[in-house]
Amino acid sequence: MTQQRPLFLLSNDDGYEAKGLQCLIEALRPVADLLVMAPEDGRSGAGCSISAATPLRYRIVRQEPGLTLCACSGTPVDCVKVALNEFADRRPDLVVGGINHGDNSSVNTHYSGTMGVVTEGALQGIPSVAFSLCDHSANADFAPLMPYLADIALKTLNAKLPPFTCLNVNFPKAASFKGIRLCRMAHSRWEHELARREHPWGGTYFWLVGDCRELEPEADDTDRYALAHGYIAITPTQLDVTDYKLKDTLKSIFL
Amino acid sequence: MTQQRPLFLLSNDDGYEAKGLQCLIEALRPVADLLVMAPEDGRSGAGCSISAATPLRYRIVRQEPGLTLCACSGTPVDCVKVALNEFADRRPDLVVGGINHGDNSSVNTHYSGTMGVVTEGALQGIPSVAFSLCDHSANADFAPLMPYLADIALKTLNAKLPPFTCLNVNFPKAASFKGIRLCRMAHSRWEHELARREHPWGGTYFWLVGDCRELEPEADDTDRYALAHGYIAITPTQLDVTDYKLKDTLKSIFL
Repeated sequence: MTQQRPLFLLSNDDGYEAKGLQCLIEALRPVADLLVMAPEDGRSGAGCSISAATPLRYRIVRQEPGLTLCACSGTPVDCVKVALNEFADRRPDLVVGGINHGDNSSVNTHYSGTMGVVTEGALQGIPSVAFSLCDHSANADFAPLMPYLADIALKTLNAKLPPFTCLNVNFPKAASFKGIRLCRMAHSRWEHELARREHPWGGTYFWLVGDCRELEPEADDTDRYALAHGYIAITPTQLDVTDYKLKDTLKSIFL
Repeated sequence: MTQQRPLFLLSNDDGYEAKGLQCLIEALRPVADLLVMAPEDGRSGAGCSISAATPLRYRIVRQEPGLTLCACSGTPVDCVKVALNEFADRRPDLVVGGINHGDNSSVNTHYSGTMGVVTEGALQGIPSVAFSLCDHSANADFAPLMPYLADIALKTLNAKLPPFTCLNVNFPKAASFKGIRLCRMAHSRWEHELARREHPWGGTYFWLVGDCRELEPEADDTDRYALAHGYIAITPTQLDVTDYKLKDTLKSIFL
C-alpha cells in the first residue's frame, strides 16, 4: 500500500493569477496534492479581515489530477474558510500562503493578507507557512526561491509546530541567498503615510504610502537584519497574543 | 498655568454613527479632548486591513470645543493613519477603539477591526485600549459600561504600557459586572463557517457564520471564562508576535 501524498491548501493576497502563486504551485506540485483557493483579484493589505457583511462566492478555474484551483470573491482568510468548509472530505496537511509580491517582515505581518492565510490555517489547527519576496513588482523574479520552497514546506509539515503558531518566511530580493536565519520580528514604524491628491472635479483624497522607520537598526537577530544582509528570514509567529508578563504587572493598576 | 487636557483618538469598526461609539464619546468627553475618526459605515471583521489600492477620503461631521468627529472611507486602521497624519499638530495621548458591538475575546482578536484600531495605535507608539461588549445588536445596552470606561481609559494612559502592547477589554452582556479580571486569550476555534444560499436567478453564495468551539473549556484564567462568569475581561496583548521559544527549537530543523 503506497502512502497517500499530502494535501497542501494554498492561498495568497495578490489574486489567483499572480505570478507568485503560480510559482508556488509549480514548486509544490511535485511533493503534494494542491487545493488552491485564492482571491479573484489583489487583496494586498487584507490582514486577517473577513467578509462579515458581503456574500462569498467561488468558482473552480482549473481541475486536474493533484491540482484544484479556485478563485474566491473574499479575503485571504475567507479563502481558507471556504476551502476548509467546501472541500471538507480531505483535511489539508499544510496551509501555505504566498508567494507574496512584497515584504511581510516586521510590523507588515499585521497588515499582510498572506499572513492572514497562515494565521487562519494555524487557528484551524493546521501547520502553516507563509512565503514572501521583498519585491513588490507584478513580474518579480521568483526563480531564486524555487529550490527552497518545497524543502521549507516539507520541513514545516514535519516540524510538529505547537498549536497557535505558524511560520513567516521572507526572501530578500537577490539572485541567490546566503542561507537561512531564524529571526524575531523587527520593531519598526510606518511614517508619513498619506499622499494627498486633488480630484480633477474637486475634492481631496489620499493614497496610503509611507516610510518604514527601523526602531532598532543595530539589532542583528531580526528579520529586517537578515533580509538586509542577504539571508532568508524565518520568523516563528504566535497567535496567542497574550502578553503574559504584562498580565501580572497590570494587576496592581486594575485590580 | 492649567494643565492641558489629554487628547484621545477614537475609532471603531461599526461606523461613526454606531451607538457604541456615541456612548464612548459621552463617557470620555469629561476627561479628555476627543478626535474621532471612524469608518463611514460598518467594517466588522476588518482586522488590521488597510486600503492599499483604494483612495481614502474623510469629512468632518461635527466640530465643537473638545470634540472633532470625522467619517472616513477606509478601514479602522486607515482611520488611525489618516487621523495621525492629517491632525499631526497634536499627537494623541491615548488611542481608544470601540465600543464594539460584539465579542472580541479569544481568537476574535485577529479578525476584529476594533483591535485593528488599537494595534495601529500601539504600533505608532501610543497607549491604546479597545472596548467591546458581548452583544452584537445595533441597539445593545451600553449603560452598564458607562461607569468603567473613563476609569479604564485613564488607567491605561497612566499604566506605562511597554512598547508594542495594548489592552483588549471585553464586557459581558449583563446589567452589572462582578469585577475586573486580567486574562489570557482563550484558545478556541470557529467551525461550520459557511451558510449556503441560492440566488433567485441561480448561483450559489455563502454567508460567513460559525460556532466558536472552546479548546480549553476547563481553564479559569481566560477571557472567555471571565466573560462567562460575569467579569470584565482585560487581556494584555502584544504586537511583537515572535514565538521566541519556537525560534530556538526550530534551529535543529532549518539551520
